[in-house]
Amino acid sequence: MVAICVPEPDDAAALGEIAGHARLTILVWDGSGPAPDGIGEVEFLVGPYMGGAFGPENLALMPRLRVIQLFSAGVEPWLPLVPDGVVLCNGRGVHGGSTAELGLAGLLALLHRLPDYLSDQHHARWDPQRGGPDLDDRRVLLLGAGDIAQRVATAVEVFGARTHFVARTEREGVSALAEVAGLLGDQDVVVVALPLTAATEGLVDAQFLAALPDGAVLVNVSRGRIVDTDALLAELTRGRLSAFLDVVEPEPLPADHPLWRAPNLLLTPHVGGGSSGWRRRAERLLQAQVTRFLADEPLANVVHDGY
Amino acid sequence: MVAICVPEPDDAAALGEIAGHARLTILVWDGSGPAPDGIGEVEFLVGPYMGGAFGPENLALMPRLRVIQLFSAGVEPWLPLVPDGVVLCNGRGVHGGSTAELGLAGLLALLHRLPDYLSDQHHARWDPQRGGPDLDDRRVLLLGAGDIAQRVATAVEVFGARTHFVARTEREGVSALAEVAGLLGDQDVVVVALPLTAATEGLVDAQFLAALPDGAVLVNVSRGRIVDTDALLAELTRGRLSAFLDVVEPEPLPADHPLWRAPNLLLTPHVGGGSSGWRRRAERLLQAQVTRFLADEPLANVVHDGY
Repeated sequence: MVAICVPEPDDAAALGEIAGHARLTILVWDGSGPAPDGIGEVEFLVGPYMGGAFGPENLALMPRLRVIQLFSAGVEPWLPLVPDGVVLCNGRGVHGGSTAELGLAGLLALLHRLPDYLSDQHHARWDPQRGGPDLDDRRVLLLGAGDIAQRVATAVEVFGARTHFVARTEREGVSALAEVAGLLGDQDVVVVALPLTAATEGLVDAQFLAALPDGAVLVNVSRGRIVDTDALLAELTRGRLSAFLDVVEPEPLPADHPLWRAPNLLLTPHVGGGSSGWRRRAERLLQAQVTRFLADEPLANVVHDGY
Repeated sequence: MVAICVPEPDDAAALGEIAGHARLTILVWDGSGPAPDGIGEVEFLVGPYMGGAFGPENLALMPRLRVIQLFSAGVEPWLPLVPDGVVLCNGRGVHGGSTAELGLAGLLALLHRLPDYLSDQHHARWDPQRGGPDLDDRRVLLLGAGDIAQRVATAVEVFGARTHFVARTEREGVSALAEVAGLLGDQDVVVVALPLTAATEGLVDAQFLAALPDGAVLVNVSRGRIVDTDALLAELTRGRLSAFLDVVEPEPLPADHPLWRAPNLLLTPHVGGGSSGWRRRAERLLQAQVTRFLADEPLANVVHDGY
């Protein structure tokens, strides 16, 4: 028997559908409350979103643990917790499509003035404005070259935008992050879809923003700490840039934070991966990973190999 | 010399850049006020948006008229005005990209609850909601198979949606409009991007809407009269459907119309083609058409051949 611990009953139900199910013992625990019986046998742990209530003391109850599977793309709350010898896998693909959709939704909403028209709708005011720029022939810089960035790029190209990728490692069609400063003056839109690392934290600072041309749009659907909130607030307030942010620093944003009242900003509360489709995709990933684990096959989405 | 009449000084400036310009006499008239000198020589007329102030009496002043060029895709205000022997050309491609963008913007805004989050933003409220459906594996029916429909379809496919086209004429990959009733029960999203004709006026009526499954989303970026406003209002009010409308019947929507207060509706005031990019595309089209006209070459975008 192989013991698996999942955070929600839905996850346990999903495992009922995989081949080899008869060999599984399934525990449900999100790290809060007392540990269930049999926790010491767990080899495969599905971590709750953003770490949930899990800490080192929880993981210490699982001496046989070999895999931690997350459904998020970002792994930063978990990295310091991973015991030696345990493989950490992320949820690449689970939230990517939905996050890319939200990024595009926010970008298009800004370009096409949906916040203004929503206000007009509330006031029963039919007032067509001279439109802003559309995507045709606009230059869109993608910070990141993964699933989210690729989807956003493919979608904006449908409308005639010209795209350029930047990522940590230079490769064909992708510039190195170290060269990003020289590219900023030529961009109409910058989409942040990079993981949060020591190299990306604070990347979009006052100097980065100052290098963008007047009227440029910043989209962040990755992690708030990649953008210097105060520097962005200054650019929004003087009306030089506009932005769509699904992620901010800090989260949750306190009610008295000036970002709430910033002009030229559309803000959503970190819901990029939260569409209802993610559940189905998470179940497919979990089924595939557990099937591999039972068959001693290599796991997908490994971000930390245990040593 | 060939006399051309354009509605705005900007159009005249655009014609300054074409080959053969020396053979042109350019008049600027939008149909309001007195006709300019030389109107009787005009062979090529660029019509103002939606007909402007032009009526049969204006056109009667141009006995040598051979071409009416519009920048809109829809031609309905002009069709009854076109004199015998005059060719009518539309603006296919000028507004399509921008209109498709707006349709996608409205659809994504509804799916990702941007109106709710904008309201939260005004109230400094950080309140992530359980997300709605994203586009992954959703079924999107395109009414129309032209530039707008094709762009919307290609973009939603990037996010995993399954698309189906319906148009007047059945062909490979496109079902006939006559068969649309049988398709509606299987759709999550319907995007209206058909021209307004006798066959499409009132097409989306109470019966059409009733055939859609609960929770379906209607997008109309074409013409308001294709949708029965009262029937849609009833479905929105009972919360069974949601909609994004850039066009309504009537336009402008009177301040006391109940559609302004309908729930589950995002409404913009017929601005689909109005982004700033259209101007550049219109100028390119005008330059190309006048160049063809001067060279006696066949015109593009002919929707009415004069006889």
